[in-house]
Amino acid sequence: MKKLKRSGRLVDMTYFMLQHPHEIISLSHFSERYQAAKSSISEDLVIIKEMFEEEGYGSLLTIPGASGGVKFIPKMKEEEAHSLVDQLVLDLNAPERILPGGYLYMMDMLGSPRLMHEVGRLFASVLHHKPIDAVMTVATKGIPLAYAVGHYLGVPISIVRRDHRITEGSMVSINYASGSSDRIQTMTLARRSLAPGSRVFIVDDFMKAGGTIHGMVDLLTEFGADLVGIGVLVESAEVEERLVDDYISLTKLSNVNVRDKKINVTRGNVMEKL
Amino acid sequence: MKKLKRSGRLVDMTYFMLQHPHEIISLSHFSERYQAAKSSISEDLVIIKEMFEEEGYGSLLTIPGASGGVKFIPKMKEEEAHSLVDQLVLDLNAPERILPGGYLYMMDMLGSPRLMHEVGRLFASVLHHKPIDAVMTVATKGIPLAYAVGHYLGVPISIVRRDHRITEGSMVSINYASGSSDRIQTMTLARRSLAPGSRVFIVDDFMKAGGTIHGMVDLLTEFGADLVGIGVLVESAEVEERLVDDYISLTKLSNVNVRDKKINVTRGNVMEKL
Repeated sequence: MKKLKRSGRLVDMTYFMLQHPHEIISLSHFSERYQAAKSSISEDLVIIKEMFEEEGYGSLLTIPGASGGVKFIPKMKEEEAHSLVDQLVLDLNAPERILPGGYLYMMDMLGSPRLMHEVGRLFASVLHHKPIDAVMTVATKGIPLAYAVGHYLGVPISIVRRDHRITEGSMVSINYASGSSDRIQTMTLARRSLAPGSRVFIVDDFMKAGGTIHGMVDLLTEFGADLVGIGVLVESAEVEERLVDDYISLTKLSNVNVRDKKINVTRGNVMEKL
Repeated sequence: MKKLKRSGRLVDMTYFMLQHPHEIISLSHFSERYQAAKSSISEDLVIIKEMFEEEGYGSLLTIPGASGGVKFIPKMKEEEAHSLVDQLVLDLNAPERILPGGYLYMMDMLGSPRLMHEVGRLFASVLHHKPIDAVMTVATKGIPLAYAVGHYLGVPISIVRRDHRITEGSMVSINYASGSSDRIQTMTLARRSLAPGSRVFIVDDFMKAGGTIHGMVDLLTEFGADLVGIGVLVESAEVEERLVDDYISLTKLSNVNVRDKKINVTRGNVMEKL
């Protein structure tokens, strides 16, 4: 790479930081890349850090020592989080989302990489101080969310399946009671898709009684992995007994009236966690 | 936002561009945000453009006129694309990937948001000049890839399902012959998850004879949507008759020897498309 002025370095470093969240980047990496003194790089980083922190994009953590460097920790400003959750609430309250049986159509939201990215950044912001090694979800609708959270935390995702596919080698299966139907179902995770001892954040698009999520928590035990937290896009308030206590919800669905085409979605508990 | 110096603006604008690929951003947006003259903003954009183009991150397209502005088009340098494909080839050739039946374990790669992001950027780079409205894939393993491609193209994703879920309203189903087994299967897409007239790029993790992808192409017709292209992470070379001609493959699997634990993966045809 040719020698750059500060302006060029700032653009390039910002680009690089955003592509490598939660990863320690050594100052030597930058000073070699730009053929610049470490002192100049440090000054560049101060400018980026100030900008990121002022706008709430995240923080740049400086790690001293031989294996040290700088780490970008994505975050979201409280007011930005508020407006994102309010936008979700507004979107979810649209009567045309109501499906037969009182379900809500959400694939347009889950199918928007832009929106999922923002939601992922919000979760990563809430979790920024927790050590996390993997994000777990269940196929199909949790995947976009898990992928976005994993991206911003810089960790891999593990996808639990409800079907049995033979193409993933040795699998671990458990039975669980789906809360809404009390039916016994099976969920499966490939043995090699989660390392023993992993600290795991579980996400899903929707939680009613929490049977599916409770199943994933049971599955963690089978892998010798630890639960760090649970996050859902929408929780349903109409639950007699919830199987999961401690979770982060972005929104809360308290009523779906199919006949009158009315939905009542409000903010979830995420605001208390910021 | 407080008035910023050039250095601060460059950091903020780079951040904003990366969050909004393929989206037209008006110069007024920036000049109001930073309380800066449009001439200063234009100078900033020249610096970012030069940097992005030199490093192959993409181009900044200037759109003149009243509704004009600037658009970030993500790309990947040819040498970066080469080294990404070579890394995929190296990873896929690991003998421990071989599963009973001659399948390859790929969930570690599909479960890495970092890697999928890079793969998504490569596809977006190949497709940068084509008008695309949506990315389509089939659950489960195509989703991380579709999500990454959709992110870099700034378009939504449509997820075709092999099971019937009742929670997505009116659905369109078709039958298709899975090439490898000649078995008739069903795939389904929610009516409202793809707009009529959409120009669609189809992606999947693996293609053998192309039966599944051919099914998705048929499904497009049902939606009055148009096929723009097809992309796969791995194509299998051991196919008597392929149902799909024109596609982009990143890698090519030509032999899996379960007994001797040998795989032969080489580069796909993507290099000819760059």
